[in-house]
Amino acid sequence: MTIRIFVTGGTFDKEYNELSGELFFKETHLPEMLLRSRSTLDVTVRTLMMIDSLNMTNEDRELIAHQCRNAHEDKIVITHGTDTMSVTARMLAEKVPGKTIVLTGAMIPYKFGSSDGFFNLGNALAFAQSLPPGVYVAMNGRAFNSDNVRKNKQTGQFEELH
Amino acid sequence: MTIRIFVTGGTFDKEYNELSGELFFKETHLPEMLLRSRSTLDVTVRTLMMIDSLNMTNEDRELIAHQCRNAHEDKIVITHGTDTMSVTARMLAEKVPGKTIVLTGAMIPYKFGSSDGFFNLGNALAFAQSLPPGVYVAMNGRAFNSDNVRKNKQTGQFEELH
Amino acid sequence: MTIRIFVTGGTFDKEYNELSGELFFKETHLPEMLLRSRSTLDVTVRTLMMIDSLNMTNEDRELIAHQCRNAHEDKIVITHGTDTMSVTARMLAEKVPGKTIVLTGAMIPYKFGSSDGFFNLGNALAFAQSLPPGVYVAMNGRAFNSDNVRKNKQTGQFEELH
Amino acid sequence: MTIRIFVTGGTFDKEYNELSGELFFKETHLPEMLLRSRSTLDVTVRTLMMIDSLNMTNEDRELIAHQCRNAHEDKIVITHGTDTMSVTARMLAEKVPGKTIVLTGAMIPYKFGSSDGFFNLGNALAFAQSLPPGVYVAMNGRAFNSDNVRKNKQTGQFEELH
Repeated sequence: MTIRIFVTGGTFDKEYNELSGELFFKETHLPEMLLRSRSTLDVTVRTLMMIDSLNMTNEDRELIAHQCRNAHEDKIVITHGTDTMSVTARMLAEKVPGKTIVLTGAMIPYKFGSSDGFFNLGNALAFAQSLPPGVYVAMNGRAFNSDNVRKNKQTGQFEELH
Repeated sequence: MTIRIFVTGGTFDKEYNELSGELFFKETHLPEMLLRSRSTLDVTVRTLMMIDSLNMTNEDRELIAHQCRNAHEDKIVITHGTDTMSVTARMLAEKVPGKTIVLTGAMIPYKFGSSDGFFNLGNALAFAQSLPPGVYVAMNGRAFNSDNVRKNKQTGQFEELH
Repeated sequence: MTIRIFVTGGTFDKEYNELSGELFFKETHLPEMLLRSRSTLDVTVRTLMMIDSLNMTNEDRELIAHQCRNAHEDKIVITHGTDTMSVTARMLAEKVPGKTIVLTGAMIPYKFGSSDGFFNLGNALAFAQSLPPGVYVAMNGRAFNSDNVRKNKQTGQFEELH
Repeated sequence: MTIRIFVTGGTFDKEYNELSGELFFKETHLPEMLLRSRSTLDVTVRTLMMIDSLNMTNEDRELIAHQCRNAHEDKIVITHGTDTMSVTARMLAEKVPGKTIVLTGAMIPYKFGSSDGFFNLGNALAFAQSLPPGVYVAMNGRAFNSDNVRKNKQTGQFEELH
């Protein structure tokens, strides 16, 4: 079973810049994480962009949708900032039919000791293999349908809309 | 969706005893891992035993099967040593019908920086929610059916029998 | 041998705020670090402030000097942001005679996996015990005299002035 | 100021063998630790042996003494298992005059999240630079003289003999 992973940035991949004291994007940690997971899945990783999801434009989302449609795999995991993950999920649900697409991310950068990112990646890869076609958000241990999910800004948790 | 986690020990939960210089079992790290994952799943954790799976007896396996049958949840994750995980999986497949049971573990203790355990837990919890009733081994990013899995002792990876 | 540790903030103690996505100060990690070090030193930790050293004012430095003079210990370690560590060191050298004062910090927050902070704390505590009275900066494995040190903003390393 | 580091093994450098489930020695973590510390010290690392200090023979100790005498540096740090660290320290005090030699190690392997090793290395490197000629054990944040130190097997802490 082959899976495609698209990297778009988000907290997941943020690093600490020791000269400026600010968080920034260098390279994705996905290959390192897959190695550590001892995954024997047939996975291809491709970085589409490295941005904060608050800065993601409609053009960026069109690009992601285009890449999802063009990928020869029909199981896709997308790493994404949490702030607008639900927005991208809904847009992909409209534009990319017939594939199982799972968006995931992290509340804490992978390089911080307490990150949830490694768990979330395991979660998302499993949902991508086992759920029927559709677009999902894999956060907080669960898979939310793209048409029924939002991030609660007060708690930082994802929840159903109704 | 409620999930039951049964803890049986294995590499997953091994700690370093700084007085003896040996690895040993203290307490399970599951609650700490669930907290770190920011899981909002309705999960109950129960420790059944804390042993090396090489030392697991038929009586131990009978106890696990009994607990799986008696649990009111029909989605169950079992943390287990990797060496005899396939053996326990096959036995549970015979004795516990009608539930989705996912066994998982780790090649490296959770407390080691390079552990695969946190990823595996995310993987197992997703498979427990999404796979049909049956018994599975969630390792190396994949879900293996209990009747078609073994640990390859040379590579340390799980693989299909045929 | 008793040692006083004064906490003033800096990168050392920065945490990741998962709701805002920004770095911030919560509480000092010093007690946790001392526990992990298995130190049997007679150490008292006191937090004076929790600030970025770029925001440190003359009043803040006067407060630190006052606390150093008033401490009954004559061996003092101060955790401090790296950007103005040399400035505070020079000021303390003028205002607090007769004590061994060692300033240290970190280029990467302690909570990041790759932090230098734990090493630097071990370094600073050793220099505080073994160097003659004076004010020192303990960074990059070395003890710099307060009158001959600066942070090179290009490399992020501390170096002698001449 | 140039410092020589001799590696002899000990808990410090133990790794987890994921195939056998046992702790073992692969390679020293010293270069990785020095990089992470951002040390700008002039340090040369040489691995003399990779053994449990309980298995260290008189011949091994003769070799260490020989290497210390022959080193052109007069500041030396030795990483060493904690169980017989005091024994080696006393022997070196007899056989290697005129140099500052600091033995250090760890109660928990560096690769475990909770290791004291990185702190101890910072501690030992500072004592090696600042203490007068003699042989010392740097553990628990302190420098013990070789003629007045033992490891308390009950507490795991180093303490004075009298």
